[in-house]
Amino acid sequence: MTQTIAVIGGTGKLGSALAWRLARAGQRVIIGSRTAESAAAKAAALGHGLTGMTNADAAAAADVVFVTVPFAAQEATLGEIGAHVSGKIVVETTVPLMPPKVTRVQLPAEGSAAARAQGLLGEGVRLVSAFHNVAAHKLAEDITVECDILVFGDDKDARTEVIALVEAIGLRGLHGGALVNSAAAEAMTSLLIFINKTYQVDGAGIRITGAMTPPA
Amino acid sequence: MTQTIAVIGGTGKLGSALAWRLARAGQRVIIGSRTAESAAAKAAALGHGLTGMTNADAAAAADVVFVTVPFAAQEATLGEIGAHVSGKIVVETTVPLMPPKVTRVQLPAEGSAAARAQGLLGEGVRLVSAFHNVAAHKLAEDITVECDILVFGDDKDARTEVIALVEAIGLRGLHGGALVNSAAAEAMTSLLIFINKTYQVDGAGIRITGAMTPPA
Repeated sequence: MTQTIAVIGGTGKLGSALAWRLARAGQRVIIGSRTAESAAAKAAALGHGLTGMTNADAAAAADVVFVTVPFAAQEATLGEIGAHVSGKIVVETTVPLMPPKVTRVQLPAEGSAAARAQGLLGEGVRLVSAFHNVAAHKLAEDITVECDILVFGDDKDARTEVIALVEAIGLRGLHGGALVNSAAAEAMTSLLIFINKTYQVDGAGIRITGAMTPPA
Repeated sequence: MTQTIAVIGGTGKLGSALAWRLARAGQRVIIGSRTAESAAAKAAALGHGLTGMTNADAAAAADVVFVTVPFAAQEATLGEIGAHVSGKIVVETTVPLMPPKVTRVQLPAEGSAAARAQGLLGEGVRLVSAFHNVAAHKLAEDITVECDILVFGDDKDARTEVIALVEAIGLRGLHGGALVNSAAAEAMTSLLIFINKTYQVDGAGIRITGAMTPPA
Protein backbone atom coordinates (compact mmCIF):
# COMPACT_ATOMS: atom_id res chain seq x y z
CA MET A 1 0.00 0.00 0.00
CA THR A 2 1.44 3.34 -1.02
CA GLN A 3 1.33 5.93 1.71
CA THR A 4 2.74 9.39 2.15
CA ILE A 5 5.54 9.23 4.66
CA ALA A 6 7.26 12.24 6.21
CA VAL A 7 10.78 11.85 7.55
CA ILE A 8 11.24 14.64 10.06
CA GLY A 9 14.88 15.56 10.44
CA GLY A 10 15.32 13.77 7.15
CA THR A 11 18.51 15.60 6.22
CA GLY A 12 20.36 13.67 8.94
CA LYS A 13 22.13 10.35 8.42
CA LEU A 14 19.41 8.04 9.73
CA GLY A 15 16.58 10.08 8.24
CA SER A 16 18.18 10.25 4.81
CA ALA A 17 18.83 6.53 4.76
CA LEU A 18 15.27 5.70 5.82
CA ALA A 19 13.78 8.13 3.30
CA TRP A 20 15.89 6.65 0.52
CA ARG A 21 14.93 3.06 1.38
CA LEU A 22 11.24 3.92 1.77
CA ALA A 23 11.17 5.77 -1.57
CA ARG A 24 12.90 2.90 -3.34
CA ALA A 25 10.25 0.61 -1.87
CA GLY A 26 7.58 2.65 -3.65
CA GLN A 27 6.36 4.97 -0.92
CA ARG A 28 5.76 8.71 -1.44
CA VAL A 29 8.35 10.20 0.86
CA ILE A 30 8.75 13.79 2.02
CA ILE A 31 11.96 14.95 3.68
CA GLY A 32 11.23 17.36 6.50
CA SER A 33 13.78 19.81 7.83
CA ARG A 34 13.86 23.11 9.68
CA THR A 35 14.00 24.93 6.36
CA ALA A 36 12.26 23.93 3.15
CA GLU A 37 15.43 24.74 1.19
CA SER A 38 17.65 22.23 2.95
CA ALA A 39 14.88 19.64 2.77
CA ALA A 40 14.45 20.16 -0.96
CA ALA A 41 18.20 20.01 -1.54
CA LYS A 42 18.50 16.69 0.30
CA ALA A 43 15.45 15.30 -1.51
CA ALA A 44 16.96 16.22 -4.87
CA ALA A 45 20.28 14.64 -3.92
CA LEU A 46 18.60 11.38 -2.90
CA GLY A 47 16.40 11.14 -6.00
CA HIS A 48 13.66 8.48 -6.27
CA GLY A 49 10.93 11.11 -6.41
CA LEU A 50 11.61 12.47 -2.93
CA THR A 51 10.38 15.95 -2.10
CA GLY A 52 11.30 18.34 0.69
CA MET A 53 9.33 20.66 2.98
CA THR A 54 9.56 22.20 6.43
CA ASN A 55 9.04 19.70 9.24
CA ALA A 56 5.57 21.08 9.95
CA ASP A 57 4.45 20.97 6.30
CA ALA A 58 5.88 17.47 5.84
CA ALA A 59 4.05 16.21 8.93
CA ALA A 60 0.80 17.84 7.80
CA ALA A 61 1.02 16.22 4.35
CA ALA A 62 1.85 12.72 5.57
CA ASP A 63 -0.07 9.62 6.64
CA VAL A 64 2.86 8.29 8.67
CA VAL A 65 5.51 10.47 10.29
CA PHE A 66 9.04 9.28 11.11
CA VAL A 67 10.97 11.41 13.60
CA THR A 68 14.76 11.12 13.20
CA VAL A 69 16.46 13.80 15.26
CA PRO A 70 19.08 13.76 18.02
CA PHE A 71 17.80 13.54 21.60
CA ALA A 72 18.77 17.17 22.23
CA ALA A 73 16.43 18.26 19.41
CA GLN A 74 13.52 15.96 20.27
CA GLU A 75 11.43 18.38 22.30
CA ALA A 76 11.73 21.31 19.87
CA THR A 77 11.07 19.09 16.85
CA LEU A 78 7.97 17.47 18.33
CA GLY A 79 6.81 21.00 19.10
CA GLU A 80 7.05 21.86 15.39
CA ILE A 81 4.94 18.90 14.26
CA GLY A 82 2.61 18.34 17.23
CA ALA A 83 -0.33 20.21 15.68
CA HIS A 84 -0.17 18.08 12.51
CA VAL A 85 0.03 14.47 13.71
CA SER A 86 -3.21 13.86 15.58
CA GLY A 87 -4.46 10.34 14.88
CA LYS A 88 -1.40 9.51 12.78
CA ILE A 89 1.27 6.91 13.33
CA VAL A 90 4.41 8.66 14.55
CA VAL A 91 7.55 6.51 14.43
CA GLU A 92 10.07 7.80 16.94
CA THR A 93 13.68 6.75 16.35
CA THR A 94 15.19 8.98 19.03
CA VAL A 95 17.84 7.43 21.26
CA PRO A 96 18.83 9.15 24.52
CA LEU A 97 22.50 9.61 23.71
CA MET A 98 23.97 12.40 25.79
CA PRO A 99 27.39 13.47 24.51
CA PRO A 100 30.16 13.17 25.38
CA LYS A 101 29.40 9.90 27.24
CA VAL A 102 27.63 8.16 24.38
CA THR A 103 28.93 4.74 25.42
CA ARG A 104 27.08 4.92 28.75
CA VAL A 105 23.40 4.11 29.16
CA GLN A 106 21.64 7.30 30.27
CA LEU A 107 17.89 6.83 30.11
CA PRO A 108 15.80 9.98 30.64
CA ALA A 109 13.63 10.53 33.69
CA GLU A 110 10.57 9.43 31.69
CA GLY A 111 12.19 5.97 31.30
CA SER A 112 12.76 6.21 27.54
CA ALA A 113 12.88 8.74 24.73
CA ALA A 114 9.71 7.11 23.41
CA ALA A 115 7.82 7.68 26.66
CA ARG A 116 9.07 11.26 26.61
CA ALA A 117 7.71 11.69 23.08
CA GLN A 118 4.32 10.29 24.08
CA GLY A 119 4.21 12.78 26.92
CA LEU A 120 5.07 15.65 24.58
CA LEU A 121 2.66 14.64 21.80
CA GLY A 122 -0.18 13.41 23.98
CA GLU A 123 -2.37 10.33 23.72
CA GLY A 124 -4.01 11.37 20.44
CA VAL A 125 -0.99 10.12 18.48
CA ARG A 126 -0.38 6.48 17.57
CA LEU A 127 3.18 6.44 18.83
CA VAL A 128 5.58 3.69 17.80
CA SER A 129 9.32 3.57 18.36
CA ALA A 130 11.84 1.68 16.26
CA PHE A 131 15.19 1.80 14.39
CA HIS A 132 17.23 2.47 17.55
CA ASN A 133 19.94 -0.08 16.89
CA VAL A 134 20.63 0.03 13.17
CA ALA A 135 23.76 1.79 11.91
CA ALA A 136 22.65 4.66 9.65
CA HIS A 137 25.61 4.30 7.30
CA LYS A 138 24.68 0.67 6.64
CA LEU A 139 21.05 1.54 6.02
CA ALA A 140 22.26 4.10 3.49
CA GLU A 141 23.90 1.42 1.34
CA ASP A 142 22.23 -1.08 -0.95
CA ILE A 143 23.22 -4.04 1.25
CA THR A 144 21.63 -6.55 3.61
CA VAL A 145 21.82 -5.03 7.08
CA GLU A 146 22.46 -7.57 9.84
CA CYS A 147 20.19 -5.98 12.42
CA ASP A 148 16.67 -6.72 13.62
CA ILE A 149 14.35 -3.76 14.04
CA LEU A 150 12.54 -3.96 17.37
CA VAL A 151 9.21 -2.14 17.20
CA PHE A 152 7.48 -0.81 20.32
CA GLY A 153 4.11 0.78 20.98
CA ASP A 154 0.95 0.41 22.99
CA ASP A 155 -1.11 0.24 19.75
CA LYS A 156 -0.50 -3.22 18.33
CA ASP A 157 -2.06 -2.42 14.94
CA ALA A 158 0.24 0.58 14.60
CA ARG A 159 3.21 -1.66 15.39
CA THR A 160 2.05 -4.11 12.72
CA GLU A 161 1.86 -1.33 10.11
CA VAL A 162 5.36 -0.17 10.98
CA ILE A 163 6.69 -3.72 10.81
CA ALA A 164 5.26 -3.94 7.28
CA LEU A 165 7.30 -0.85 6.34
CA VAL A 166 10.39 -2.36 7.98
CA GLU A 167 9.99 -5.52 5.90
CA ALA A 168 9.37 -3.43 2.77
CA ILE A 169 12.79 -1.83 3.13
CA GLY A 170 14.51 -5.18 3.53
CA LEU A 171 14.91 -5.61 7.26
CA ARG A 172 13.31 -7.92 9.81
CA GLY A 173 10.89 -6.14 12.13
CA LEU A 174 9.82 -7.71 15.42
CA HIS A 175 7.10 -6.77 17.87
CA GLY A 176 8.88 -5.60 21.02
CA GLY A 177 5.75 -4.97 23.07
CA ALA A 178 4.55 -1.94 24.95
CA LEU A 179 6.10 1.49 24.46
CA VAL A 180 7.75 1.20 27.88
CA ASN A 181 9.90 -1.61 26.44
CA SER A 182 11.55 0.89 24.12
CA ALA A 183 13.99 1.47 26.99
CA ALA A 184 15.64 -1.86 26.18
CA ALA A 185 16.48 -0.95 22.57
CA GLU A 186 17.36 2.64 23.42
CA ALA A 187 19.80 1.51 26.12
CA MET A 188 21.22 -1.10 23.74
CA THR A 189 22.39 1.66 21.41
CA SER A 190 24.89 3.00 23.95
CA LEU A 191 26.10 -0.55 24.36
CA LEU A 192 26.53 -1.01 20.60
CA ILE A 193 28.56 2.20 20.43
CA PHE A 194 30.74 0.85 23.25
CA ILE A 195 31.17 -2.41 21.35
CA ASN A 196 32.00 -0.54 18.12
CA LYS A 197 34.82 1.24 19.94
CA THR A 198 36.04 -1.72 22.01
CA TYR A 199 36.03 -4.27 19.19
CA GLN A 200 36.58 -1.90 16.24
CA VAL A 201 33.26 -2.87 14.69
CA ASP A 202 31.94 -0.97 11.68
CA GLY A 203 28.38 -0.65 12.97
CA ALA A 204 27.44 -3.50 15.30
CA GLY A 205 23.80 -4.54 15.29
CA ILE A 206 21.60 -7.02 17.10
CA ARG A 207 19.81 -10.17 16.09
CA ILE A 208 17.19 -11.96 18.15
CA THR A 209 17.85 -15.71 17.94
CA GLY A 210 15.37 -18.56 18.01
CA ALA A 211 12.83 -20.02 15.60
CA MET A 212 9.83 -17.73 15.35
CA THR A 213 6.21 -18.31 14.40
CA PRO A 214 4.51 -15.15 13.10
CA PRO A 215 1.74 -13.99 15.44
CA ALA A 216 -1.84 -14.66 14.35
CA MET B 1 43.18 -21.62 35.65
CA THR B 2 41.19 -23.62 38.16
CA GLN B 3 39.36 -21.50 40.68
CA THR B 4 36.77 -22.17 43.33
CA ILE B 5 33.47 -20.77 42.18
CA ALA B 6 30.37 -20.43 44.33
CA VAL B 7 26.98 -20.34 42.66
CA ILE B 8 24.66 -18.63 45.13
CA GLY B 9 21.08 -19.68 44.60
CA GLY B 10 22.59 -22.59 42.71
CA THR B 11 19.57 -24.85 43.15
CA GLY B 12 17.60 -22.65 40.73
CA LYS B 13 17.43 -23.18 36.97
CA LEU B 14 20.06 -20.65 35.91
CA GLY B 15 22.35 -21.41 38.85
CA SER B 16 22.22 -25.16 38.31
CA ALA B 17 22.97 -24.80 34.62
CA LEU B 18 25.90 -22.47 35.24
CA ALA B 19 27.30 -24.68 37.99
CA TRP B 20 27.06 -27.73 35.75
CA ARG B 21 28.80 -26.01 32.83
CA LEU B 22 31.53 -24.54 35.05
CA ALA B 23 32.22 -27.90 36.70
CA ARG B 24 32.39 -29.66 33.34
CA ALA B 25 34.90 -27.00 32.27
CA GLY B 26 37.17 -28.08 35.13
CA GLN B 27 36.37 -25.51 37.80
CA ARG B 28 35.79 -26.41 41.47
CA VAL B 29 32.17 -25.42 41.92
CA ILE B 30 30.15 -25.07 45.10
CA ILE B 31 26.37 -24.83 44.98
CA GLY B 32 25.09 -22.37 47.56
CA SER B 33 21.55 -22.43 48.88
CA ARG B 34 19.62 -21.27 51.93
CA THR B 35 20.13 -24.71 53.48
CA ALA B 36 23.20 -26.93 53.17
CA GLU B 37 20.93 -29.95 52.65
CA SER B 38 19.24 -28.68 49.51
CA ALA B 39 22.59 -27.44 48.18
CA ALA B 40 24.18 -30.85 48.73
CA ALA B 41 21.25 -32.64 47.14
CA LYS B 42 21.44 -30.49 44.01
CA ALA B 43 25.22 -30.89 43.86
CA ALA B 44 24.87 -34.67 44.03
CA ALA B 45 22.22 -34.66 41.33
CA LEU B 46 24.39 -32.60 38.99
CA GLY B 47 27.54 -34.69 39.53
CA HIS B 48 30.91 -33.55 38.11
CA GLY B 49 32.41 -33.17 41.60
CA LEU B 50 30.03 -30.41 42.66
CA THR B 51 29.57 -29.80 46.38
CA GLY B 52 26.90 -27.93 48.30
CA MET B 53 26.90 -25.51 51.25
CA THR B 54 24.88 -22.65 52.65
CA ASN B 55 25.11 -19.46 50.61
CA ALA B 56 27.35 -17.86 53.25
CA ASP B 57 29.73 -20.83 53.47
CA ALA B 58 29.89 -21.17 49.70
CA ALA B 59 30.72 -17.46 49.29
CA ALA B 60 33.37 -17.67 52.02
CA ALA B 61 35.06 -20.66 50.35
CA ALA B 62 35.09 -19.24 46.83
CA ASP B 63 37.39 -17.08 44.72
CA VAL B 64 34.57 -15.99 42.43
CA VAL B 65 30.92 -15.76 43.47
CA PHE B 66 28.00 -16.01 41.04
CA VAL B 67 24.66 -14.73 42.32
CA THR B 68 21.67 -16.36 40.61
CA VAL B 69 18.50 -15.49 42.49
CA PRO B 70 15.22 -13.82 41.53
CA PHE B 71 15.02 -10.04 41.88
CA ALA B 72 12.70 -10.38 44.87
CA ALA B 73 15.41 -12.37 46.71
CA GLN B 74 18.36 -10.19 45.72
CA GLU B 75 18.55 -7.99 48.79
CA ALA B 76 18.21 -10.83 51.33
CA THR B 77 20.69 -13.02 49.46
CA LEU B 78 23.34 -10.32 49.19
CA GLY B 79 22.82 -9.78 52.92
CA GLU B 80 23.74 -13.46 53.51
CA ILE B 81 26.98 -13.27 51.56
CA GLY B 82 28.06 -9.64 52.01
CA ALA B 83 30.51 -10.38 54.80
CA HIS B 84 32.31 -13.01 52.71
CA VAL B 85 32.93 -11.36 49.33
CA SER B 86 35.22 -8.43 50.05
CA GLY B 87 37.78 -8.06 47.26
CA LYS B 88 36.23 -10.91 45.27
CA ILE B 89 34.63 -10.90 41.86
CA VAL B 90 30.88 -11.16 42.31
CA VAL B 91 28.97 -11.98 39.12
CA GLU B 92 25.40 -10.74 39.41
CA THR B 93 22.89 -12.35 37.06
CA THR B 94 19.81 -10.76 38.59
CA VAL B 95 17.22 -9.35 36.20
CA PRO B 96 14.55 -6.97 37.50
CA LEU B 97 11.54 -9.05 36.50
CA MET B 98 8.53 -8.08 38.55
CA PRO B 99 5.71 -10.61 38.20
CA PRO B 100 3.10 -10.71 36.90
CA LYS B 101 4.17 -8.21 34.22
CA VAL B 102 7.39 -9.97 33.22
CA THR B 103 7.05 -8.89 29.58
CA ARG B 104 7.31 -5.20 30.53
CA VAL B 105 10.59 -3.42 31.20
CA GLN B 106 10.57 -2.32 34.84
CA LEU B 107 14.02 -1.09 35.83
CA PRO B 108 14.52 -0.41 39.54
CA ALA B 109 15.03 3.07 40.97
CA GLU B 110 18.80 2.46 41.05
CA GLY B 111 18.74 2.11 37.25
CA SER B 112 19.61 -1.60 37.17
CA ALA B 113 19.70 -4.65 39.39
CA ALA B 114 23.49 -4.52 39.06
CA ALA B 115 23.67 -0.96 40.39
CA ARG B 116 21.38 -2.02 43.23
CA ALA B 117 23.75 -4.88 44.05
CA GLN B 118 26.75 -2.57 44.08
CA GLY B 119 24.90 -0.32 46.50
CA LEU B 120 24.06 -3.24 48.75
CA LEU B 121 27.54 -4.82 48.68
CA GLY B 122 29.58 -1.62 48.67
CA GLU B 123 32.61 -0.60 46.66
CA GLY B 124 34.91 -3.25 48.16
CA VAL B 125 33.50 -5.88 45.82
CA ARG B 126 34.59 -6.34 42.19
CA LEU B 127 31.06 -6.40 40.83
CA VAL B 128 30.36 -7.71 37.34
CA SER B 129 26.97 -8.46 35.83
CA ALA B 130 26.27 -10.98 33.07
CA PHE B 131 24.05 -13.87 31.87
CA HIS B 132 20.88 -11.77 31.78
CA ASN B 133 19.67 -12.90 28.37
CA VAL B 134 20.46 -16.59 28.13
CA ALA B 135 17.65 -19.11 28.54
CA ALA B 136 18.48 -21.29 31.56
CA HIS B 137 16.96 -24.43 30.04
CA LYS B 138 19.25 -24.11 27.02
CA LEU B 139 22.31 -23.59 29.19
CA ALA B 140 21.36 -26.77 31.03
CA GLU B 141 21.68 -28.86 27.88
CA ASP B 142 24.85 -30.00 26.16
CA ILE B 143 24.18 -27.83 23.10
CA THR B 144 25.50 -24.69 21.44
CA VAL B 145 23.50 -21.78 22.84
CA GLU B 146 22.78 -19.04 20.33
CA CYS B 147 23.20 -16.13 22.72
CA ASP B 148 26.02 -13.70 23.41
CA ILE B 149 26.82 -12.99 27.04
CA LEU B 150 27.18 -9.26 27.63
CA VAL B 151 29.48 -8.56 30.57
CA PHE B 152 29.31 -5.30 32.53
CA GLY B 153 31.39 -3.79 35.30
CA ASP B 154 33.48 -0.79 36.20
CA ASP B 155 36.53 -3.05 36.76
CA LYS B 156 37.75 -4.00 33.29
CA ASP B 157 40.09 -6.73 34.54
CA ALA B 158 37.23 -8.34 36.44
CA ARG B 159 35.14 -8.26 33.24
CA THR B 160 37.99 -9.91 31.36
CA GLU B 161 38.19 -12.72 33.94
CA VAL B 162 34.47 -13.32 33.70
CA ILE B 163 34.62 -13.34 29.91
CA ALA B 164 37.26 -16.09 30.18
CA LEU B 165 34.80 -18.15 32.22
CA VAL B 166 32.04 -17.46 29.69
CA GLU B 167 34.27 -18.73 26.89
CA ALA B 168 35.27 -21.74 28.98
CA ILE B 169 31.65 -22.85 29.16
CA GLY B 170 31.18 -22.53 25.43
CA LEU B 171 29.57 -19.13 24.95
CA ARG B 172 30.76 -15.86 23.49
CA GLY B 173 31.34 -13.17 26.11
CA LEU B 174 31.55 -9.50 25.14
CA HIS B 175 32.61 -6.45 27.09
CA GLY B 176 29.49 -4.34 27.58
CA GLY B 177 31.17 -1.49 29.39
CA ALA B 178 30.46 0.16 32.70
CA LEU B 179 28.12 -1.39 35.26
CA VAL B 180 25.51 1.27 34.45
CA ASN B 181 25.18 -0.35 31.00
CA SER B 182 23.79 -3.48 32.63
CA ALA B 183 20.40 -1.77 32.30
CA ALA B 184 20.45 -2.54 28.57
CA ALA B 185 20.79 -6.31 29.01
CA GLU B 186 18.47 -6.41 32.02
CA ALA B 187 15.75 -4.58 30.09
CA MET B 188 16.33 -6.82 27.09
CA THR B 189 15.26 -9.84 29.15
CA SER B 190 11.68 -8.58 29.48
CA LEU B 191 11.70 -8.03 25.75
CA LEU B 192 12.94 -11.57 25.08
CA ILE B 193 10.15 -12.97 27.27
CA PHE B 194 7.67 -10.88 25.26
CA ILE B 195 9.14 -12.26 22.04
CA ASN B 196 9.01 -15.83 23.38
CA LYS B 197 5.29 -15.40 23.99
CA THR B 198 4.47 -13.44 20.85
CA TYR B 199 6.43 -15.61 18.41
CA GLN B 200 6.27 -18.92 20.33
CA VAL B 201 10.04 -19.05 20.66
CA ASP B 202 11.67 -21.69 22.86
CA GLY B 203 14.10 -19.33 24.54
CA ALA B 204 15.02 -16.37 22.32
CA GLY B 205 18.51 -14.96 22.74
CA ILE B 206 20.56 -12.11 21.33
CA ARG B 207 23.57 -11.91 19.07
CA ILE B 208 25.65 -8.83 18.47
CA THR B 209 26.45 -8.63 14.76
CA GLY B 210 29.54 -7.25 13.05
CA ALA B 211 33.13 -8.36 12.61
CA MET B 212 35.00 -7.93 15.88
CA THR B 213 38.67 -7.45 16.69
CA PRO B 214 39.55 -8.60 20.24
CA PRO B 215 40.62 -5.65 22.42
CA ALA B 216 44.35 -5.32 23.15
